[in-house]
Amino acid sequence: MSRAPISETMTAPVTVGVSLGDRSYDILIGPGLVAKAGAELARRLPGVRAAIVTDANVAAHHLEAFQASLSASGVDAQPIVVAAGEKSKGFDTLQEVVSGILEARLERGDAVVALGGGVVGDLAGFAAGIVRRGMLFVQAPTSLLAQVDSSVGGKTGINTPHGKNLVGVFHQPQLVLADTDVLDTLPAREFRAGYAEMAKYGLIDRPDFFAWLEKNWQAVFDGGDARVEAIAQSCRAKAAVVARDEREAGDRALLNLGHTFGHALEAATGYDGSRLVHGEGVAIGMALAHRFSARLNLASPDDAARVEAHLSAVGLPTKLSDVPGGLPGAERLLTYIAQDKKVARGALTFVLTHGVGQSFVARDVPSSQVLAFLEESLRP
Amino acid sequence: MSRAPISETMTAPVTVGVSLGDRSYDILIGPGLVAKAGAELARRLPGVRAAIVTDANVAAHHLEAFQASLSASGVDAQPIVVAAGEKSKGFDTLQEVVSGILEARLERGDAVVALGGGVVGDLAGFAAGIVRRGMLFVQAPTSLLAQVDSSVGGKTGINTPHGKNLVGVFHQPQLVLADTDVLDTLPAREFRAGYAEMAKYGLIDRPDFFAWLEKNWQAVFDGGDARVEAIAQSCRAKAAVVARDEREAGDRALLNLGHTFGHALEAATGYDGSRLVHGEGVAIGMALAHRFSARLNLASPDDAARVEAHLSAVGLPTKLSDVPGGLPGAERLLTYIAQDKKVARGALTFVLTHGVGQSFVARDVPSSQVLAFLEESLRP
Ligand SMILES: NC(=O)c1ccc[n+]([C@@H]2O[C@H](COP(=O)([O-])OP(=O)(O)OC[C@H]3O[C@@H](n4cnc5c(N)ncnc54)[C@H](O)[C@@H]3O)[C@@H](O)[C@H]2O)c1
Ligand SMILES: NC(=O)c1ccc[n+]([C@@H]2O[C@H](COP(=O)([O-])OP(=O)(O)OC[C@H]3O[C@@H](n4cnc5c(N)ncnc54)[C@H](O)[C@@H]3O)[C@@H](O)[C@H]2O)c1
Ligand SMILES: [Zn+2]
Ligand SMILES: [Zn+2]
Repeated sequence: MSRAPISETMTAPVTVGVSLGDRSYDILIGPGLVAKAGAELARRLPGVRAAIVTDANVAAHHLEAFQASLSASGVDAQPIVVAAGEKSKGFDTLQEVVSGILEARLERGDAVVALGGGVVGDLAGFAAGIVRRGMLFVQAPTSLLAQVDSSVGGKTGINTPHGKNLVGVFHQPQLVLADTDVLDTLPAREFRAGYAEMAKYGLIDRPDFFAWLEKNWQAVFDGGDARVEAIAQSCRAKAAVVARDEREAGDRALLNLGHTFGHALEAATGYDGSRLVHGEGVAIGMALAHRFSARLNLASPDDAARVEAHLSAVGLPTKLSDVPGGLPGAERLLTYIAQDKKVARGALTFVLTHGVGQSFVARDVPSSQVLAFLEESLRP
Repeated sequence: MSRAPISETMTAPVTVGVSLGDRSYDILIGPGLVAKAGAELARRLPGVRAAIVTDANVAAHHLEAFQASLSASGVDAQPIVVAAGEKSKGFDTLQEVVSGILEARLERGDAVVALGGGVVGDLAGFAAGIVRRGMLFVQAPTSLLAQVDSSVGGKTGINTPHGKNLVGVFHQPQLVLADTDVLDTLPAREFRAGYAEMAKYGLIDRPDFFAWLEKNWQAVFDGGDARVEAIAQSCRAKAAVVARDEREAGDRALLNLGHTFGHALEAATGYDGSRLVHGEGVAIGMALAHRFSARLNLASPDDAARVEAHLSAVGLPTKLSDVPGGLPGAERLLTYIAQDKKVARGALTFVLTHGVGQSFVARDVPSSQVLAFLEESLRP
């Protein structure tokens, strides 16, 4: 890991609180947090022991520094390294992680620490939620997607052959440590994918944030204060939705903007990350949601064009034809959408929009209209 | 299933409420409830669809009647039959059950119904707790142990090679339907094992109930009103503890009376039900807990003798020498106890007693005293 300059490590991190009654917790965001992880754990969870779940990529860059930080503060920790990639989010690797935690003889008052992207966070969080019926949990997200999205809100889980994220629990962390420096080792494509989720918060209900991103996105990519600020804004946005609707009974569905189309595209490409990663699916999905809304005369086509322009500017895909390797026909794509778990009792549920920052949940979208829109969108 | 006489099926079931705020639910106890299951589900969870998880033994006796009941009330239900026995409480069968639920295309607002003993209840409840991050859950316990213990309180889970019940979630049911007639097909040995847990409630803090059981146990075994009454009393006792301490942070530990010794014996016999079933381990464990308390001058030896006399009268084992096939030495038994998950941070925690109905949690029992007591108890 590249050492942060002293001026950065001295900066106090930004703290975003997530208000969930007795399950409330802090998200710390800033440079140099890996070095401070041990001190934060020792102070907030005195006497805790830990298992550090991470993947091989992240381990290569950051595990040593993370372990050193915990060790320096006297926090005993056992690493559990899984293979990198979405394939690790399944029952097999879950069992490996569970065994590792039990092997380390951790108890209910000990902590599972997720050091990694969304895959590690979802997997480790699920393990933390079920070993001894619930252990303490700490997120140290290392991908941009994980820092702005998956590490906040307590959704954990794995995939099954029936679909993504179909098995899991709600299990809130005690603490989230988002070190903005570790993103410097993240592949550029993964950074862009995470950026799509960041832009999502602007598109849902924060038009000013979207406008700010249109101006400042390059600074966010470069690092420094703009990055910290954008991540903090994203966490605040997500935390606000989660606080209103912890268990996804209503409002939280807005966070699925772009995701119904996005998940269908991920399924249609066989969850092959070389073709499409999650954030890219979301980028295309958000562009489609805006175009579909315009098509239904709910929003202006100008807004759809604006969204598409910005996502393209940062290098994200926005059209079905941007997916390499081709897609199945509209009928088939629709079956992927109808299999999506957000389909409530047969009715198609979509997050649609009245314009930038004006998204809403539409619960009875006729599948015929979705089909017609998909056919249109697939035309070259 | 033997048909209950009309006078019985006309009796309204006894209702015991479990008070857990917005997770409160009813336990219905009485004869003929299988026939009423469909009506109760349709009335309490309108529009619900269901998966019925059961084991091969229970399916042979009761699945047809249960399905007919649901079907008569228009509740669409898919059976998922697993092998009978503790071996089904593992990751492999969990995955089978999860697949079956997803295959049936059930959604978050649909229900997993556990029709069976504690194995089926723990397994199906865990699946209900994790599929789609939590579905509705209904318990239809068919063993006495499940009716008085495992179906109440929301603890679900599976075993791993590291130990029993090490993985699971707290997931409360929406409803418990305890048909006291289905116990007529339960093997006598299993009935006695469940009776041990029933007696436990008396020994924890209900001396009057224990005295009542000493007089009326034969009527409880025979069936009819005494059985309904004893099951209802047991559920009230457990519900009261659970309401005070849903997530086992304190009081709930009292429910482990007899279980620290009991679990060690189950482990020492390789969880081989032909040698020792859970309730038998608990019976011996309770007798040992009372003798150990007397040994530590906490309780009178007369109380220990009284407990032993009653458990023996109903045909339950009470001594280490009652375990067929022999046991390892005291040192080895102690390692099974120290591996028990109720061991908090290295200190040995036991439920001890000042006498019948006066149990308490002792958090710092020196392992040397336990060892000495085990050695003494192993002597022929
Ligand atoms: N729980 C939630 O609320 C939620 C929300 C959104 C997404 N998710 C889940 O998150 C997952 C996607 O997360 P992701 O995009 O972080 O995927 P990921 O965890 O697979 O990380 C992407 C890649 O980047 C690597 N990586 C991560 N941090 C790195 C670093 N600092 N340096 C170098 N390499 C690094 C990883 O090894 C991996 O190869 C999906 O499974 C998705 O379902 C969950
Ligand atoms: N969740 C909890 O709070 C809790 C509490 C106590 C025990 N448990 C768990 O419960 C399990 C033990 O439960 P159990 O004793 O019911 O075991 P079980 O489910 O294996 O049932 C015992 C045997 O009786 C059979 N059976 C059940 N009902 C029958 C019926 N009506 N007719 C004929 N046969 C029938 C079963 O097929 C099985 O062979 C253990 O795994 C234990 O860990 C859980
Ligand atoms: Zn996403
Ligand atoms: Zn028990």
